[in-house]
Amino acid sequence: MSMRFDVISVIPQVFDAYMGASILGRASQRGIYEFYAHDLRDWTHDRHRTVDDAPFGGGQGMLMKPEPIFEAVESVSAMDGRKPHVVFFSPCGSRFDQGVARRLAAKERVLMVCGRYEGMDERVYALADETISLGDYVLTGGELAAMAVTDAVVRLLPGALGDEMSAQDESFSEGLLEYAQYTRPAEFRGMSVPDVLLSGDHGAVARWRRESALRRTVQWRPDLLDGLPLNEKERAMVDGLLANESTGLEGV
Amino acid sequence: MSMRFDVISVIPQVFDAYMGASILGRASQRGIYEFYAHDLRDWTHDRHRTVDDAPFGGGQGMLMKPEPIFEAVESVSAMDGRKPHVVFFSPCGSRFDQGVARRLAAKERVLMVCGRYEGMDERVYALADETISLGDYVLTGGELAAMAVTDAVVRLLPGALGDEMSAQDESFSEGLLEYAQYTRPAEFRGMSVPDVLLSGDHGAVARWRRESALRRTVQWRPDLLDGLPLNEKERAMVDGLLANESTGLEGV
Repeated sequence: MSMRFDVISVIPQVFDAYMGASILGRASQRGIYEFYAHDLRDWTHDRHRTVDDAPFGGGQGMLMKPEPIFEAVESVSAMDGRKPHVVFFSPCGSRFDQGVARRLAAKERVLMVCGRYEGMDERVYALADETISLGDYVLTGGELAAMAVTDAVVRLLPGALGDEMSAQDESFSEGLLEYAQYTRPAEFRGMSVPDVLLSGDHGAVARWRRESALRRTVQWRPDLLDGLPLNEKERAMVDGLLANESTGLEGV
Repeated sequence: MSMRFDVISVIPQVFDAYMGASILGRASQRGIYEFYAHDLRDWTHDRHRTVDDAPFGGGQGMLMKPEPIFEAVESVSAMDGRKPHVVFFSPCGSRFDQGVARRLAAKERVLMVCGRYEGMDERVYALADETISLGDYVLTGGELAAMAVTDAVVRLLPGALGDEMSAQDESFSEGLLEYAQYTRPAEFRGMSVPDVLLSGDHGAVARWRRESALRRTVQWRPDLLDGLPLNEKERAMVDGLLANESTGLEGV
């Protein structure tokens, strides 16, 4: 049975274009996952379909009211026999990363609630199985976070990438940044592809790539190296790079 | 003159719905910013409008070729008298955060290049003024990153939020997570709004909010506290919370 995603939002019309394009669109057509965007205003009961109200204690801006969100989450949850894993987005949540994506990819169903306006009434977080933060920046709403989570999760589902791509050999899949990659032409505006990649020597290519991944990680994300299993030679290389970061990094 | 954003993508049709909705849509209508999505395939010269090719050295998946990207960036750059700040997205880039958003909000023009497929030929990064990573997760392309950057930047532009919101009083604006917020009803499903917020005592509300922001930051993001200017009383409270994290955190 395909994995099911539901989102609750006041702008449900923003999802279709992205979810229907490219790899995500094809994965959906092949039945790898289902995606449903619900309009939060469907669970309001006044003529103006009000979803926000002024904050207690004063201050600028409007907050999302608790009632429509509770009703929407309960109602959408009941639309399928599978109980959803309910995700809210907040800067107070735990940071989204590839490990969280892998964990969510094992769920049968994920329901995401997108905030708008100045924030949500704090009590709605009682509905959350998990609160996720996409990073230390502020967006106008949770919709892009919901799309990013869906994207990162769907591409990990079996068959989602088809034959066109691989989720194995990329940044974070082995705890490192991905190695540098090149395609034709071998020479472009004075910039050349490293000779070894043109050599046809598969062993040498594999070594160069591992080295490139290690060098790039040392240069840009040394924090990723903590606790990473490295063999003796790799450890020596990393130690050398860390001791003298200014040499040998060219071209990888 | 309004800030100008350009994006180059193989799926330029995915931007309109999000950029046209809600706050971003209204800001665009009011002339706060301009946003143009360009189809990378417009800079190919073969019948199949090819933008990708197999990687040198072998391996699964396809890479984005350098020629269309160079031509597109040069051509789009020349569409306006203002030279753009060129942004690429990569896990090797520097982490996007609210500080980067503020820095980009001071630019007159930002041009973002969205990757797809397995990655891009390494040589295209020669075009980048800046390479940004949205986080330690892998998406099918850079489009969501471009939308997130545009969203985070636009909402900082003068007038973008109109009267409906404030970019001052929110997470990260003072280096802390935002305080807990509540709206009506005062009692909802057995959950009450803290009394002080109903008291009408503005000084007490302000103190409660500052304390709430500090407590939440201690609980969920103690790393944000490093180097933050706190007065003596706040420092004592933070130290107390850090020493005994299990008490006093209820309801804030």
